[in-house]
Amino acid sequence: MKLLDLYAKMKGDLNQIEQELERTVTTDHVLLSEASVHLLKAGGKRIRPIIVLLSGKFGDYSLEVMKHIAVPLELIHMASLVHDDVIDDAETRRGQLTVKSQWDNRIAMYTGDYIYGKALTLATKLTNPIIHQILSKAMVQMCVGEMEQIRDFFNMDQTVRNYFLRIRRKTALLIAISCQLGAVASNADRATANKLYRFGYNIGMAYQIRDDLLDLLGTEKQIGKPPGSDMRQGNITLPVILALKDNRIQEALSRELAIIRKSGSVSDTSRAIEIIRNSEGVAQADQLASRYISKALAALEGLPNIAAKKNLVDIAHFVGKRNY
Amino acid sequence: MKLLDLYAKMKGDLNQIEQELERTVTTDHVLLSEASVHLLKAGGKRIRPIIVLLSGKFGDYSLEVMKHIAVPLELIHMASLVHDDVIDDAETRRGQLTVKSQWDNRIAMYTGDYIYGKALTLATKLTNPIIHQILSKAMVQMCVGEMEQIRDFFNMDQTVRNYFLRIRRKTALLIAISCQLGAVASNADRATANKLYRFGYNIGMAYQIRDDLLDLLGTEKQIGKPPGSDMRQGNITLPVILALKDNRIQEALSRELAIIRKSGSVSDTSRAIEIIRNSEGVAQADQLASRYISKALAALEGLPNIAAKKNLVDIAHFVGKRNY
Repeated sequence: MKLLDLYAKMKGDLNQIEQELERTVTTDHVLLSEASVHLLKAGGKRIRPIIVLLSGKFGDYSLEVMKHIAVPLELIHMASLVHDDVIDDAETRRGQLTVKSQWDNRIAMYTGDYIYGKALTLATKLTNPIIHQILSKAMVQMCVGEMEQIRDFFNMDQTVRNYFLRIRRKTALLIAISCQLGAVASNADRATANKLYRFGYNIGMAYQIRDDLLDLLGTEKQIGKPPGSDMRQGNITLPVILALKDNRIQEALSRELAIIRKSGSVSDTSRAIEIIRNSEGVAQADQLASRYISKALAALEGLPNIAAKKNLVDIAHFVGKRNY
Repeated sequence: MKLLDLYAKMKGDLNQIEQELERTVTTDHVLLSEASVHLLKAGGKRIRPIIVLLSGKFGDYSLEVMKHIAVPLELIHMASLVHDDVIDDAETRRGQLTVKSQWDNRIAMYTGDYIYGKALTLATKLTNPIIHQILSKAMVQMCVGEMEQIRDFFNMDQTVRNYFLRIRRKTALLIAISCQLGAVASNADRATANKLYRFGYNIGMAYQIRDDLLDLLGTEKQIGKPPGSDMRQGNITLPVILALKDNRIQEALSRELAIIRKSGSVSDTSRAIEIIRNSEGVAQADQLASRYISKALAALEGLPNIAAKKNLVDIAHFVGKRNY
């Protein structure tokens, strides 16, 4: 089944999630509502709600219960994006904030805080304390991941291990607990919840690697921002780390990265991208992403062969597909 | 009893809270630990932990349980301060961020997010869902309060009611739930928890009014920053709103505020402060603060005459004391 068919099949439940998302962030405060709803309308693939719902099918599925997991998880994801934007905004303006962008940043910061708070408020309607423990721990780890990313900006000595630890916290964990909490909240047994956690973790890792590849190899139209944005920000991703390990090109690439660092947000990354594209880094990163997809599929083994399992397999294949 | 004597009396329990605060924010990530511990060491009066502990004395007091309320509440307060600093930093630099301050702002934002997450993680060790519902709702309201403050910057038409709604969310609510949750977590009855909530709410309101008066009337040494900082930021506080209601000075004060708005963070607020000081605004704001203190004391009526009640009365008198 294609992903679009899956959306069509789940349309009824997803519409209800969409309504609940909007209802949750709507408030008396006009600006907060506007900013939050604007964010919601900006879209997103709603991957987290979808996998929450599918994971819930392995237990006693109730949309009413699933809402209190799916909506908070999507909101936590959104809040983290808003806070990322505060950072990016400051960058793209080369460190100079206009009054307008200052206002946006303030509002973005408190909108993020507000959405986090609303996410938790909705989740607290479920009384199983384990859910809240998993959720709050993941929020902490996501912040640590963001801080690790900042710490490692333009660090050309970082290892592949560093990168994996960082994207695990930054991205994979939230997808992992989307699966896990969908199962836990629908009273699936522990073994099932653990398998689903591993599935989510592995597609999360693959997803971030593909996303980082896309930032280097995609077109501006495809990725919605100029290629090389990560590099411009100082975010050294897997294909770059791997390319830097190649002695033949290490010097040239390091030189380009140093120039990018100096030129800041307006720098031309085309030469660096050319070097990486001609290195083994792309193929190796690609292989590593595929390996995570295989691990995700393996994690599903032993789960009952219900329709949701097939759908999760489809999602894994979708994440694993090259789009650059 | 003076406040210092109260600290001395509660030293044992407060030391344990202090240790737990530090333990909670310490992490493998050096920068996050450093930033968080630096914040903790910068001090604060720990008013929220103190009133949590005192409120807990109206039920089955257990320091072990109280820790899981007192530490999260102090951390939520701290996280909100860190996020406020992001805003203030950008302001005091007149909208231009140096690379150094950019880094500080990023780090401040994620440190705030991290501390929020850690606060919640600790709280989730208590399994009573009501606690989490109260906590997450308060976090949402605090964000709304901060956004209202931004929305009302330099709005000279705002009413006293506007101001009260804003500081209620921004300040009073967290102090109110400190009292309430101390009682709830120690299984005090609902009437007791409600009385303590009202006590906290009212001292919170008085505290913010006094703080806003101090910003206008205190010395730089006393308040740790130049007087008039609120005005410079555009935050129109109670004495200013009240002074603007006086027809004889409204025009002159509005003119000064317009000049301050134009000059930004380097503006001279001394003339505006002089005008406000000579208005009825100061005395009226002062009276309103005293009225909240009276309401706080009234809320304690009917509670058993234990030592903690006397201590809360002392705290109310301390908050009510003029310090300008």
